[in-house]
Amino acid sequence: VSSGDEHAAPLVEPSARLTPLDEVERRLAALQDTLAARELDAALILQNADLYYYSGTVQQGFLYVPVVGAATLFARKIVDRARLESPLRDIVALGAARDLPEAIAERHGGLAQRIGLELDVLPVTQFRRLEALFAGATFADVGPDIVRLRAVKSPWEIDRIRAAAALADEVFRLAPGLLEEGLTEAAFAGCVEAEARRLGHEGVIRMRGFNQEMFYGQLLSGASGAAATFLDTPLGGTGLSPAIAQGVSFKPIRRRDHVLFDFVAVREGYIADFTRILALGRLPRELARAYDAALRVQEVVKTTARPGVTCAAVWAAAETAAEKEGLAAGFMGRGEGKVRFVGHGVGLELDELPVLTRSDLELAEGMVFALEPKFVLPGLGAIGVENTWHVTAVGIEALTRAPEDVVEVAP
Amino acid sequence: VSSGDEHAAPLVEPSARLTPLDEVERRLAALQDTLAARELDAALILQNADLYYYSGTVQQGFLYVPVVGAATLFARKIVDRARLESPLRDIVALGAARDLPEAIAERHGGLAQRIGLELDVLPVTQFRRLEALFAGATFADVGPDIVRLRAVKSPWEIDRIRAAAALADEVFRLAPGLLEEGLTEAAFAGCVEAEARRLGHEGVIRMRGFNQEMFYGQLLSGASGAAATFLDTPLGGTGLSPAIAQGVSFKPIRRRDHVLFDFVAVREGYIADFTRILALGRLPRELARAYDAALRVQEVVKTTARPGVTCAAVWAAAETAAEKEGLAAGFMGRGEGKVRFVGHGVGLELDELPVLTRSDLELAEGMVFALEPKFVLPGLGAIGVENTWHVTAVGIEALTRAPEDVVEVAP
Repeated sequence: VSSGDEHAAPLVEPSARLTPLDEVERRLAALQDTLAARELDAALILQNADLYYYSGTVQQGFLYVPVVGAATLFARKIVDRARLESPLRDIVALGAARDLPEAIAERHGGLAQRIGLELDVLPVTQFRRLEALFAGATFADVGPDIVRLRAVKSPWEIDRIRAAAALADEVFRLAPGLLEEGLTEAAFAGCVEAEARRLGHEGVIRMRGFNQEMFYGQLLSGASGAAATFLDTPLGGTGLSPAIAQGVSFKPIRRRDHVLFDFVAVREGYIADFTRILALGRLPRELARAYDAALRVQEVVKTTARPGVTCAAVWAAAETAAEKEGLAAGFMGRGEGKVRFVGHGVGLELDELPVLTRSDLELAEGMVFALEPKFVLPGLGAIGVENTWHVTAVGIEALTRAPEDVVEVAP
Repeated sequence: VSSGDEHAAPLVEPSARLTPLDEVERRLAALQDTLAARELDAALILQNADLYYYSGTVQQGFLYVPVVGAATLFARKIVDRARLESPLRDIVALGAARDLPEAIAERHGGLAQRIGLELDVLPVTQFRRLEALFAGATFADVGPDIVRLRAVKSPWEIDRIRAAAALADEVFRLAPGLLEEGLTEAAFAGCVEAEARRLGHEGVIRMRGFNQEMFYGQLLSGASGAAATFLDTPLGGTGLSPAIAQGVSFKPIRRRDHVLFDFVAVREGYIADFTRILALGRLPRELARAYDAALRVQEVVKTTARPGVTCAAVWAAAETAAEKEGLAAGFMGRGEGKVRFVGHGVGLELDELPVLTRSDLELAEGMVFALEPKFVLPGLGAIGVENTWHVTAVGIEALTRAPEDVVEVAP
């Protein structure tokens, strides 16, 4: 795919997979079913992850999805790029946001009266502008509907997540060769991330939750893993300053330190989440025992999770298994830092459904989640394992496939 | 600063500079003046960048700022970490968000009736929860006020940005040694970013604008610089896929390619923005001419910008200078990709005030902005220069200081 002129820069990376039309059509049809069930006339999609999901592009614009009929992408910047990236047939250039109601009315024979918006992510100011623009219309929140619909992935999406998972596997295969005694966590992370970039890691990790932020994951050595922080995650890390307050620090990785290698891979927008353990020298016995416990908790979840099982049942199985290991206090964090889930959906965002917590949501074929049984041990740090799994017809299957043995690197 | 136990992980990186109490007090006093002028009883600060600015921590919580009297940080996760990070004296542990009104009433002798919120960034769902929680109160948008107040930096903040600028300078000093013919943009970026991480780059680049995203900046070689995208920036890049649609691609950097090295540095939460030019071999003549033009546009702005001058005057001076160079068509992008500013404020977010555009805002001492005269040349890519400047009493002074000569690397 190119912009036509052979001397011009391509607007789309030649190796990139464009979202196929049938993918987008199926997704839009499912959204339209929801709009019908909620008696909405249309949805207007704005947020990058959702826009990409329903249109194949994140070029600035508004995706108008009527309850019946073809969706229109009103594209602003860059219109030609949107046309190259998106499989949608109806892409209309829009001059300014204020022209949107008229453009919709013209294209769709009138204006919707009840419009669904992503109110879970749309800032109030943005929302009020739309309210003023669509005077007389009423608005409903379709954010949670979209989140629910996006939780079930197509085979095409699972292939994308498989590619992200393969990136995580490959980066971890290279990691032991990069680890040296005395490197700071920050320096080691830099070496690892350089490999990830070369292999096609896209950097930007989208999160839906307000104030949630993530940069490549958490690479935490020794006791660092026990430093909890503001995030809705079991681990945080000291970080380089209170301004960011997570992730690597300038602590040197020392002999007998282990490295919790929690790595978020992003390829073509899709995310895989992954944790393995490296150790500089021999992994201390107490940590080794806890790591084996994490593998057993993972095994319990693996035999529990399948379509029709609730997230609550999976969480209960994991929690019970952790208790049986005698490690309940440090399971998924300690004290204030403890979180009440053992896994979370991944896809175009890092914080998707299903959340493996006390929730009635049932697992369904096509869902994809990261399962991350982890323990925080006072003074020793954090340890655990994490794979990205997809729910098959009969159970769950790992997309991340790197061997789970602790990799001991000679100091 | 440590959490007390010598075997525990520090919650604050020992080298990190905590925000001094007098900084926070002065900032809060200025916000209180604004609250008084707007006849608001209080502000409730939630968003990470603002929370850090006014409290020195991003630990989960609500910062309650009454129009008169001491602010209270109602901290949720992690309370001990908030206490270590924040210089505020009044930090109260809050169990759940629903307990907030009662906790405020108890601490402040009653509930505010008119409350300022960051409605420019707060999602609608979040806002509605607060509306329900504070039944009877009315809410006003203080987001734009905070943005305006944050635009003027203290000497302490300018020192922080100076440290970020020094990081950008140092990374660029190392960059020529990392450039090799045949490396993809992605691989070269990885090498550069590894150095940045080692030196303390924090990764997360906060942006206030909805849907705006950035990962280290834009490292674009040859014609890549001409690939415009959705961002409110003059350049975009092909990117690795339409899902992210910006930044580096798998294009190899070839003999005679130049590299536009647009690099965003983050240290202790503060940002510096920076662009220099590398070339593999000799920079083609047309690009060299445009680069010299960019330097002259920068020089014109440098002699124009000082306290009391409007952003519009600076923008007009830059635009006129670009026209005189005969390069108006490609100035700050081409066609749809053109943006109507030549610079933007930086601080805790990449997209701050002042925006050097047709705006009445006057420059004031203490403001910090990135000035980025750039040209897009069809088929050749983009070229230009960018420094981060602070407004002094009499003019502007560069915080980024790397030499501005094009660095030609032998292929």
